[in-house]
Amino acid sequence: MRPRSAGVGATTWVVADGYIPPRSSGPEPEMTSHDSICMLNAGDTGARVLVRVYFTDREPAGPFVLSIPARRAFHQRINDLHDPERIPVGTDYCLVVTSDVPIVVQHTRLDSRQEANALMSTIAFPVSPQELPGFPPGLSRG
Amino acid sequence: MRPRSAGVGATTWVVADGYIPPRSSGPEPEMTSHDSICMLNAGDTGARVLVRVYFTDREPAGPFVLSIPARRAFHQRINDLHDPERIPVGTDYCLVVTSDVPIVVQHTRLDSRQEANALMSTIAFPVSPQELPGFPPGLSRG
Amino acid sequence: MRPRSAGVGATTWVVADGYIPPRSSGPEPEMTSHDSICMLNAGDTGARVLVRVYFTDREPAGPFVLSIPARRAFHQRINDLHDPERIPVGTDYCLVVTSDVPIVVQHTRLDSRQEANALMSTIAFPVSPQELPGFPPGLSRG
Amino acid sequence: MRPRSAGVGATTWVVADGYIPPRSSGPEPEMTSHDSICMLNAGDTGARVLVRVYFTDREPAGPFVLSIPARRAFHQRINDLHDPERIPVGTDYCLVVTSDVPIVVQHTRLDSRQEANALMSTIAFPVSPQELPGFPPGLSRG
Repeated sequence: MRPRSAGVGATTWVVADGYIPPRSSGPEPEMTSHDSICMLNAGDTGARVLVRVYFTDREPAGPFVLSIPARRAFHQRINDLHDPERIPVGTDYCLVVTSDVPIVVQHTRLDSRQEANALMSTIAFPVSPQELPGFPPGLSRG
Repeated sequence: MRPRSAGVGATTWVVADGYIPPRSSGPEPEMTSHDSICMLNAGDTGARVLVRVYFTDREPAGPFVLSIPARRAFHQRINDLHDPERIPVGTDYCLVVTSDVPIVVQHTRLDSRQEANALMSTIAFPVSPQELPGFPPGLSRG
Repeated sequence: MRPRSAGVGATTWVVADGYIPPRSSGPEPEMTSHDSICMLNAGDTGARVLVRVYFTDREPAGPFVLSIPARRAFHQRINDLHDPERIPVGTDYCLVVTSDVPIVVQHTRLDSRQEANALMSTIAFPVSPQELPGFPPGLSRG
Repeated sequence: MRPRSAGVGATTWVVADGYIPPRSSGPEPEMTSHDSICMLNAGDTGARVLVRVYFTDREPAGPFVLSIPARRAFHQRINDLHDPERIPVGTDYCLVVTSDVPIVVQHTRLDSRQEANALMSTIAFPVSPQELPGFPPGLSRG
């Protein structure tokens, strides 16, 4: 019997360049322009993940609540979030992703506004544990 | 009443591959070739952000001064900086971004020089606090 | 005589956005849509590398076993892994890469589904040593 | 009189996905397919930078020696390195970049093999100081 694994990664991640391109070329939904957060929960316990969305000119939205089972990948298009609200296309935003167990988050955009699609991706920014107390505002609800 | 949050991230960030592609295809300003720094101030205090631009063959430009309100996203095209000067297109540069409160910075380029646009993005490089004393030169003005 | 070098990097790395685009344009195999993990073993000892693949709806696959000689680059297309199984195209996945000596891992995708190819790349996420004990589940076999 | 700044960043950086696409579309040299390392020396002392190139099937090449003046950006196409040798196109490689003062390194590829160019970029991987002793092999020459 092996011991349960707590997983790997961090419990708070930031994506600073959020933007859903407002037009698309090619077959839907595969080639629909989108922003995604791609997550790994490598541990032996399910993860409860909260996503909060920050905008330029209003208070943050969310949290959006996601569940990632133990030892599972979970790729979430921001376009598909709908509860408690939808994220508008063509709008600048940032994301703070928190989890009750360690996960890893990668941010990817597919932009098919023009004839051939463009891609971009980066590992999100992991916030070190010592910055966690008291943060992020409002995330304790949900 | 919840305590005020100091936000998350770091107070100095570096972008090493700065370049504004000198031509564009598609509707302006949406598809105009650009370099952007996308920033999140997740804290409860407004951020005063200084951007300094380093070149290959001259002393650094700036600081350019930006303000990010508490709990807000702020995506800044480098193309649109104009005070104290404009950043020339088609020119290699690097950026040092400093803030008086922690922020997160992501660097993204849209290149529409050719028929379909290309994208690239990366979380910028956070400079660890112990490297801050005395740096960066000249940023104390502004 | 110089001392042997243990290499640089980390011994566990995570890629969270795994996906092999299911179609391609252009000459094979060069322009075939693919996901790659690009690795450096800069040390003086050969590396034994294990790749485990996490999915959305099934238990992880692998480990896939790779060998990187001392002082060598090794770029592995995920498309080409076949033992103990093949990774399906058009399917979300995540990767955990472990090595018995320090390596560096970068994740790159070439997507040629549409007329001109798109690219994305990021340094993978290095898991800090203190998270290693007991992880990842199952990787001790192979 | 302000004190001299030692700059910011790290003194050893790794790029794991090196590859110069072997064909190009569009006007040269601007749209020539290339791999670049984009560097910032933000300090008040010139940097002496050594680049070593690791391959799949031969011993490493280099070091290639570069100089970055104080407070300067320096973007180097790998295509343009020629002393002590040229890096072949269409060949997998990795890079280790060392500097005698802290710098920041970002890796970018422009791929114009197909009709519209693709871009990818990532901050390189900074090797922590404690891994430096004895590394990298051979870099002490040059």
